[in-house]
Amino acid sequence: MLIIDCHGHYTTAPDAHQKFRDRQLARLKDPLAPAPQAAQISDDEIRETIENNQLKLQKARGSDITLFSPRASAMAHHVGDEAVSQAWTRACNDLIKRVVDLYPENFVGVCQLPQSPGVPIAHSVGELERCVKELGFVGCNLNPDPSGGHWTAPPLTDKHWYPFYEKMAELDVPAMIHVSASCNPNFHATGAHYINADTTAFMQFIEGDLFRDFPTLRFIIPHGGGAVPYHWGRYRGLADMLKRPALAQHVMKNVFFDTCVYHQPGIDLLVEVIDIDNILFGSEMVGAVRGIDPQTGHYFDDTKRYIDALSIPEEDKRRIYELNARRVFPRLDAILKARNL
Amino acid sequence: MLIIDCHGHYTTAPDAHQKFRDRQLARLKDPLAPAPQAAQISDDEIRETIENNQLKLQKARGSDITLFSPRASAMAHHVGDEAVSQAWTRACNDLIKRVVDLYPENFVGVCQLPQSPGVPIAHSVGELERCVKELGFVGCNLNPDPSGGHWTAPPLTDKHWYPFYEKMAELDVPAMIHVSASCNPNFHATGAHYINADTTAFMQFIEGDLFRDFPTLRFIIPHGGGAVPYHWGRYRGLADMLKRPALAQHVMKNVFFDTCVYHQPGIDLLVEVIDIDNILFGSEMVGAVRGIDPQTGHYFDDTKRYIDALSIPEEDKRRIYELNARRVFPRLDAILKARNL
Repeated sequence: MLIIDCHGHYTTAPDAHQKFRDRQLARLKDPLAPAPQAAQISDDEIRETIENNQLKLQKARGSDITLFSPRASAMAHHVGDEAVSQAWTRACNDLIKRVVDLYPENFVGVCQLPQSPGVPIAHSVGELERCVKELGFVGCNLNPDPSGGHWTAPPLTDKHWYPFYEKMAELDVPAMIHVSASCNPNFHATGAHYINADTTAFMQFIEGDLFRDFPTLRFIIPHGGGAVPYHWGRYRGLADMLKRPALAQHVMKNVFFDTCVYHQPGIDLLVEVIDIDNILFGSEMVGAVRGIDPQTGHYFDDTKRYIDALSIPEEDKRRIYELNARRVFPRLDAILKARNL
Repeated sequence: MLIIDCHGHYTTAPDAHQKFRDRQLARLKDPLAPAPQAAQISDDEIRETIENNQLKLQKARGSDITLFSPRASAMAHHVGDEAVSQAWTRACNDLIKRVVDLYPENFVGVCQLPQSPGVPIAHSVGELERCVKELGFVGCNLNPDPSGGHWTAPPLTDKHWYPFYEKMAELDVPAMIHVSASCNPNFHATGAHYINADTTAFMQFIEGDLFRDFPTLRFIIPHGGGAVPYHWGRYRGLADMLKRPALAQHVMKNVFFDTCVYHQPGIDLLVEVIDIDNILFGSEMVGAVRGIDPQTGHYFDDTKRYIDALSIPEEDKRRIYELNARRVFPRLDAILKARNL
């Protein structure tokens, strides 16, 4: 059985990458300055940041492959303008590609998108296509709120998003729905904005009819689906009140939750109420919560421990760890099959 | 043992009350029209709406007393201006008072506040005082987002809110943190906005130091605390990462969750991870989800069934059903004691 972590970010990228970003942001105040070039980063610098962090944790925790994307909180689509977002996104994705090339057995790429508030989502199609076709990435992170906590974009079920969904369907890649940093002081990024976005997206899918128009579209809602599994009765009841079909038909053929829930009771609930086929192993490491849980003596985000502790058949664990990810990410499956995995 | 439902709304108010609201809203487009007067509603009209709904359900489900407040989604603080919000709020609270007077053994009043976007919260102090001192209400519903889904107010820990907290402390009344309707198409009211607000408020309390300044302040976060119990490990971990004290000391002396979670696994999780002393029985009835769960044959919002089914000592159930509510709402306790309850 392969252990595939569907949710990992390059939160430990070399300083030079952030310095490029800093120069980008400085130029917002001095538009006549020359556009900065993406950082020159050596393979050794990348090796150091990966081997001391994500790769070390993979080995320590016993996972095999991480679907690896740029740091989510740093996407910051609300900062600067479309050109800034395009250049930053390209640099971030190129860096992921270098990690994948250095450690092809351990990481598979998932891309950031060059979204920008008020800019048509069609402008993100090119980067998705580049990342999938040229860089070999297998999915993307789609931000439902490029404004960073002001929620000015239309709901995910609006036709606004359809040009992007058409490309996702054509390329047969899923999207993780993932907001970035919050510039609204009401919302702590990882403690409120992330979880709220997960909950919000799910409810939008209940209200809409997106999967009638795109029956093959697939979304991962991270962080265990936000509040949804805990309130599963509420969502079943709301679907009924809104005269929508049952969730199993209406939403859950197309929507999947990861296991980024940082305690055993939460994972127990997730597996109790959500069909096993809709759950993908994920840890978000190195991510939102980096400490050790004093109640267990283990890292909060070592989510594999919680899955391992479940009293479910081994075959169900294999679905969570491997088979569901291979089904949701067909291009990952193709990569693995080419390696006889 | 008394069964006290800490979360009930007058969602079934007589039509005349809504017609008053409609006239208010019509006047927004025709400011020269005379200000409408609150509706003339007979006792019989009130009796009919209560006896066929909340009172019938109280009896059927076996609860004794409901802390009763105006319909939350109709507060709509974002509609109109401060004068509109003041007049509507007063009419809503006066109607609650009439229900309480007709059924003093079954309902105790909790007030709506005349909040308005951009208006100082000090302007809500007078109505709180009127409701508590003149109408005998025991708590209030505080909206952290009077903009209705645009989140333009400062966080609840900001000094913006302090004049109101001072009055809450002086009167020794708690607030339920409860948003209203959403005018942001991203957020379905009861499926996203409510739950997001609950999660958001909790994270604000972690980030801030509100309870150092107001050690006796008490908040109920409804809907089972939003996403918080499901992600309890995340919140414990974030408090640690942010160098805040442990949640038990930093937040949970002052914050309580209700049981408006509409399925057994959610209630099981709530009681497993949250201290019993922080859980108050609530049903939100007649509320967000009104249907019957096909999996159980019972109403989704008959939350008493889920508590009754818990394998916990009777004394713990009494804390959830009665004792915690009496502690969090001292003015309720005083009313009950005056009745030798």
